Amino acid sequence: MQDKSISQAVIGRLPRYYRYLGDLKDEGVERISSKELSILMKVTASQIRQDFNNFGGFGQQGYGYNVSYLYEEIGKILGLNEDHHLIIIGAGNLGRALTNYSNFGNRGFIFEGIFDKSSELIGKKVGLLTVKPMEELEAFIEEHSIDIVVIAIPKTGAVSVADRVVKCGIKAIWNFAHVDLLVPPDVVVENVHLSDSLMKLSYMLTVR
Amino acid sequence: MQDKSISQAVIGRLPRYYRYLGDLKDEGVERISSKELSILMKVTASQIRQDFNNFGGFGQQGYGYNVSYLYEEIGKILGLNEDHHLIIIGAGNLGRALTNYSNFGNRGFIFEGIFDKSSELIGKKVGLLTVKPMEELEAFIEEHSIDIVVIAIPKTGAVSVADRVVKCGIKAIWNFAHVDLLVPPDVVVENVHLSDSLMKLSYMLTVR
Repeated sequence: MQDKSISQAVIGRLPRYYRYLGDLKDEGVERISSKELSILMKVTASQIRQDFNNFGGFGQQGYGYNVSYLYEEIGKILGLNEDHHLIIIGAGNLGRALTNYSNFGNRGFIFEGIFDKSSELIGKKVGLLTVKPMEELEAFIEEHSIDIVVIAIPKTGAVSVADRVVKCGIKAIWNFAHVDLLVPPDVVVENVHLSDSLMKLSYMLTVR
Repeated sequence: MQDKSISQAVIGRLPRYYRYLGDLKDEGVERISSKELSILMKVTASQIRQDFNNFGGFGQQGYGYNVSYLYEEIGKILGLNEDHHLIIIGAGNLGRALTNYSNFGNRGFIFEGIFDKSSELIGKKVGLLTVKPMEELEAFIEEHSIDIVVIAIPKTGAVSVADRVVKCGIKAIWNFAHVDLLVPPDVVVENVHLSDSLMKLSYMLTVR
């Protein structure tokens, strides 16, 4: 259990550290100084040290960080040392894309099921999974110890689906629907609002 | 041309305002006070007023904002009053999902083409588009006045593809590849790193 008080900004940067350290590990790099990492990642060495100090510092600075150790430790902080069991609600293009994204599986995010309300999609294969009807949702979540639900349906249905999975005890929702979900305070929601992201790009292009 | 000095945080909130105002407009709401909007959006009325003051304030506070006017004005700031012409590089699951996402078209983001290097995909239909070979990339960008390139390929190819499109004069990249792109300072990149987002959710689930 980590310290809850760590800022969202620091947390937001952890996956990026993890990604760079994974690449360095794959390239056979054994040690790296905060200076070298800072050049690679285009952030200041001081920010790296400050970020890492939130988690105890990860070893001597003068000598540099042990890449494998740092990678493993950040992975643990991110909860990647345990498998997560996910289902996707929505077997449209996006749901299918997410199901087939192999990177997630390598990180311990295991897609156990995919659901849709459309009779045209139910029974169809998506990668190794078969699309299930929404009626089986609650039983499936319980049987397969699902801990993360991915919502990949249009916004009209998203709020009621979120309610249903929260009632089943789900504490984490990865939300691609273009709506803000209302959930109890002990449920975490990570939103990926693709339209918002594209609008931000359009804004930046306009003021550039 | 807008003020370049407006903070990233404010810019990041604009699409969300735009989304709520669009919903209010669709519901026939004509005027809304910053107080009412703040309750709906779960932010403070003072933040709303401060955010809007970056753009001149959008009208009297006591009387409330004119919803349609505010929606149009924020749309203009976001560059949505002009059409954008996009291509997608990568006709895998994600590229296909993005192409078929009808919401983007409604906002003036028009997908003109989709490209892939795989001979198995070239010539296949994706929605109304036909997958084109990478050899045609540069000519297509010029012919169709493309202003935004979406990168939806694995990270190994993403950096060199970004170089190619930047050489063609592209100034905006929507990047789904799990890598940070190196581009000249006048090119804007909006990253959607899905793995990073999922890891952040995993972290929040761990510390919850």
